[in-house]
Amino acid sequence: MPGPLGGKDPIAELVGLLSRLPGVGERTAARLTYFILGMSREYAQALGRTLSELHDRVRKCEECGNYATEALCAICSDSRRDVSQICVVARPPDVAALERGASFRGRYHVLHALLAPLDGIGPEALGLGKLVDRVRRGGVSEVIVATPLSVEGEATALYLAQELRPLGVRCTRIASGLPHGGELEFSDQITLTRALEGRRDL
Amino acid sequence: MPGPLGGKDPIAELVGLLSRLPGVGERTAARLTYFILGMSREYAQALGRTLSELHDRVRKCEECGNYATEALCAICSDSRRDVSQICVVARPPDVAALERGASFRGRYHVLHALLAPLDGIGPEALGLGKLVDRVRRGGVSEVIVATPLSVEGEATALYLAQELRPLGVRCTRIASGLPHGGELEFSDQITLTRALEGRRDL
Repeated sequence: MPGPLGGKDPIAELVGLLSRLPGVGERTAARLTYFILGMSREYAQALGRTLSELHDRVRKCEECGNYATEALCAICSDSRRDVSQICVVARPPDVAALERGASFRGRYHVLHALLAPLDGIGPEALGLGKLVDRVRRGGVSEVIVATPLSVEGEATALYLAQELRPLGVRCTRIASGLPHGGELEFSDQITLTRALEGRRDL
Repeated sequence: MPGPLGGKDPIAELVGLLSRLPGVGERTAARLTYFILGMSREYAQALGRTLSELHDRVRKCEECGNYATEALCAICSDSRRDVSQICVVARPPDVAALERGASFRGRYHVLHALLAPLDGIGPEALGLGKLVDRVRRGGVSEVIVATPLSVEGEATALYLAQELRPLGVRCTRIASGLPHGGELEFSDQITLTRALEGRRDL
């Protein structure tokens, strides 16, 4: 859309950039832009500076691939974490979600990708070399695959197990079933089937 | 929330800043932050630069108070616009909304405030001096008050009429009634009452 200020319009520029964010349409982008114009210059500049520096300040942990500010992330550099368990996830926010639960005390490995042959994303995109190195170095007794319960996540889990089992490490998959508070009536068929298959003795 | 990176955490920093935007909770802010981390450094820097420079590049038009990049906004500096009509609105996005309709060819006046005695916002916040000057300079035959149809917008409209009528200018108020496509069944009582009161001959 042509901006209200015409010519080289900072309002239209910001609306255009914000519209590229997920869940932000042009209307929301315009609302945010006018809101920020109504906020202090200091706020806009702090937000601007943080965004400009973001990719320079955040890098990937050399050990696990999670986001970090140093060569090693806060978890890999924490000697109290159990080195015998590695939990493999697809994306950095998955680590943050698991850490909020705080029941897992091992370490992570972030793939930053999932197998999706139909989109041309094959095993090379997973960069398994680093994970294989970690397992080969020894001390790892279990790799817990916590990729999503989607087609791509399941395909990736199967591939991982196939590559890692020959190294003599135990590979496990997070459970699939009804979520906490879940109602049978409102659950989909695949979830119900998985919940039945995954039943345990009481 | 403590950020996943610990210490001086750029992710937590950005989540905190984004959470201050309207309609953006901590979850959405985290989703946006991880999305931006997954986008190119160029995108993040362009967004950052535009935000940092926003308040310096956007100023208020000296004539009407609308956002502008020069001393006069694109509308006030357009000699084809009718100087005999001034449409008074509360906020700059209101100008953008009216311009999208493109049926009004006069000029605007942006108050950047509405009367709200209960919140301690009195007439001085409206800064009517500039609007009175514009009317006194002559050539203005009508002031159309397009403040919102809220309590504050109505109070402001009444106050404006009271201040401007002695100057010999016609003051009008935008119509209130059912919106386009509006159903009587689902309209509130105030809207229905106003629609009846504002009826016109067919």
